[in-house]
Amino acid sequence: MIQAYPPERAQISMNNRPGKVVCVGRNYVDHAKEMGNDVPKEPLIFLKPPTTVIRNGDSVVLPPESTHVEYEGEIGVVIGKKLRRVSEEEARGAVQQIVAVNDVTARDLQKAEPQWTRGKGFDTFCPVGEPVDAPADLSSLTVVTRVNGTERQRARGSDMVFSVPRVLSYISQFMTLEPGDLVCTGTPSGVGKLSPGDEVEVEIVGLSKVTNKVVAEQR
Amino acid sequence: MIQAYPPERAQISMNNRPGKVVCVGRNYVDHAKEMGNDVPKEPLIFLKPPTTVIRNGDSVVLPPESTHVEYEGEIGVVIGKKLRRVSEEEARGAVQQIVAVNDVTARDLQKAEPQWTRGKGFDTFCPVGEPVDAPADLSSLTVVTRVNGTERQRARGSDMVFSVPRVLSYISQFMTLEPGDLVCTGTPSGVGKLSPGDEVEVEIVGLSKVTNKVVAEQR
Repeated sequence: MIQAYPPERAQISMNNRPGKVVCVGRNYVDHAKEMGNDVPKEPLIFLKPPTTVIRNGDSVVLPPESTHVEYEGEIGVVIGKKLRRVSEEEARGAVQQIVAVNDVTARDLQKAEPQWTRGKGFDTFCPVGEPVDAPADLSSLTVVTRVNGTERQRARGSDMVFSVPRVLSYISQFMTLEPGDLVCTGTPSGVGKLSPGDEVEVEIVGLSKVTNKVVAEQR
Repeated sequence: MIQAYPPERAQISMNNRPGKVVCVGRNYVDHAKEMGNDVPKEPLIFLKPPTTVIRNGDSVVLPPESTHVEYEGEIGVVIGKKLRRVSEEEARGAVQQIVAVNDVTARDLQKAEPQWTRGKGFDTFCPVGEPVDAPADLSSLTVVTRVNGTERQRARGSDMVFSVPRVLSYISQFMTLEPGDLVCTGTPSGVGKLSPGDEVEVEIVGLSKVTNKVVAEQR
């Protein structure tokens, strides 16, 4: 057990992990298209186990079970207070921090299996940068992903199909969000394969950055 | 945040929740059949958010978003030590406790949506009994579900498609299991709808029991 019911405010800090990592799929039109999917009518929610979380400078480990692991740069938001069946307006006020996140995905396993739990759930598959206080206007944020210094993804918060407040309000209709929970708000187009030796970096421009080496798992 | 890296041994206790709730789908032949599914070649793993966990005597709350919520009585196991890429033999020794669990499911939402996160993830959708020390032979356990005193499900651990050690070993190949994590090992046939006023009870015969009233959500 271990996890006491959380206090009302909390931060993601080194050596600590979010209570929940809640993610949104297909939240940018161009990314849904590049995956051959329609944009969903409601946010498509899935979970990553908190054991996926690593920090800046840690290595993303490519497991032997997959031959095709991809980066997905995302805007992460850290929840500042308990949210249960809240409006978008209430949700907007509960975003305590924003943070660069990489929703690393074993694309082959994700596509082959009915649930995404394994494809999204390997240890080290959620690099998280240093959280910073959230600006008032999340739609003005820009997220950029670089591999070995070359830009691969770039999008603005305003490009999301479902805005951050809409996503948080939606999640809170079924699952209580709590202080310190991390919500990953979806990746834009430009996802691609990672190989051993790569350096992958996700930046919320000027605010938060997470840089990680990619290594093959040693067995 | 909030959750420090856990100590090496831990228990689920009242007021505390598992760090992760990891579940197995279609792990009994008869249940896979009643759902119209084949038995999977490998364990089908999904996550419930820890915010689903309630205890004996708490109410299962039926949300207005679903018209068909079902009980799923299961044998839960509480992990006693860190498991990463372990063999079945090692996994066997890491089961610290067993516990009666009800993997409550909004079947309509589970079937309509690509991921099961919402259908399985409403608050109160994981009643958990009092954990007890695990017996040496988990395959001899019997799980029974009763609704309003009438037996609806009954199976033995030996009826599972994938044994508990096999399931834990499989999960540990991608996701580190940690002390206090709860693994729900799948439900046998006989699932059915819950209605407001029902009393639903899952028992691991003679060892652990969880009994809950079912209520409609008040809006």
